[in-house]
Amino acid sequence: MLKYIFFDIDDTLFPSTEFAKRARRNAVRAMVGLGLPHSEKQLTESLMKIIKGKGSNYPKHFDVLLEEYNVKKPARYIAAAVAAYHDTKTSIQPFPDALRTLLKLKEKGYRLCIATNGRSLKQWDKLIRLGIVLYFDEVFVSETEGVEKSKAFFRKVFGKLKAKPSECLMVGDREDADIIPAKNAGMHTVKALYGKEGKPTKADFGIRKLSSLLTIVERL
Amino acid sequence: MLKYIFFDIDDTLFPSTEFAKRARRNAVRAMVGLGLPHSEKQLTESLMKIIKGKGSNYPKHFDVLLEEYNVKKPARYIAAAVAAYHDTKTSIQPFPDALRTLLKLKEKGYRLCIATNGRSLKQWDKLIRLGIVLYFDEVFVSETEGVEKSKAFFRKVFGKLKAKPSECLMVGDREDADIIPAKNAGMHTVKALYGKEGKPTKADFGIRKLSSLLTIVERL
Repeated sequence: MLKYIFFDIDDTLFPSTEFAKRARRNAVRAMVGLGLPHSEKQLTESLMKIIKGKGSNYPKHFDVLLEEYNVKKPARYIAAAVAAYHDTKTSIQPFPDALRTLLKLKEKGYRLCIATNGRSLKQWDKLIRLGIVLYFDEVFVSETEGVEKSKAFFRKVFGKLKAKPSECLMVGDREDADIIPAKNAGMHTVKALYGKEGKPTKADFGIRKLSSLLTIVERL
Repeated sequence: MLKYIFFDIDDTLFPSTEFAKRARRNAVRAMVGLGLPHSEKQLTESLMKIIKGKGSNYPKHFDVLLEEYNVKKPARYIAAAVAAYHDTKTSIQPFPDALRTLLKLKEKGYRLCIATNGRSLKQWDKLIRLGIVLYFDEVFVSETEGVEKSKAFFRKVFGKLKAKPSECLMVGDREDADIIPAKNAGMHTVKALYGKEGKPTKADFGIRKLSSLLTIVERL
């Protein structure tokens, strides 16, 4: 019998990719608005290369960008970019049907958990910003668990919850980071097809909107 | 003849102390709201001690606080505290008469500058958040100049602007960090008595609201 439902956060509970794109665009616009003499398009392309090279958790993307453009007094532009970026990132909203879906699942008595890769503080920040933190009984972040989502990650989690894999469902948008590890750990799986990847998937079910989960859990 | 007017930022252009206090209160409330089993009063007192000990630019006040209270899973509370703190700090507003005063001074043809102690990025962030960044022709931050506000700081600034001290006025709320250094550098001085300190002052003038500056500059 299904008892635990695990959710990924990014692109599963909120449109993370879309907000990240909007945040970058607003950051670049803020710099141009303050007089940086380059086009938004050119700056955005350079920024994307830097993010790709340094990784998205690197804290100084804008510093590197302005260095590349030989900007002599970068502080004003970095401050403007960071402010615009943060303002967008802190205004994140859940997918429109997320709150209703989480609430219904709670009413049905399921224990809801987060299973996410990333830095603990950043992932908690998202849950708080999204206004959904109190829906979750437990939050498991790879940084805290010491291992990324994998068979080992979920084994560790099962131990903490005293849960059997067959009582657990994983909902996520990534085949490699959500579906395969959860399957390997013996869990039920639902792929959020509205995320980055869509089909094909080895998940037991695919959903086009989060609320479709409500009919799936009835069958498990 | 007066050409340049230099402004301090914190407690001169916006009520910095008041916002910092509000930000700390909101941070503590967010942690208690998330279930931290201690009183707001007690947490605030502990936090104040930590800020005093570590300095206000130390980036991990909340981490230290939660460690002191032996909190086992601190990430949720740190995330909530940082979010509430930032939301308050990013909603800073200038003193009510600041925009009007700065605009009138610009109309009169004065060159407006910032002279502030602190970290470059943080001080630029404040100017951007306050919506006043474009009023200023030049911004001098101690971190960038390599020296805190002092005779040496202002000498350096005069060199960059090709300005004479007698053409310059410093407006600030701190006797030791604004008025004395500016006087030593030969500048005119106005003390913002609505800031932390009030009287007594060795400044040429004291003002109870920023807009009083408009009548003072006429006399110089």
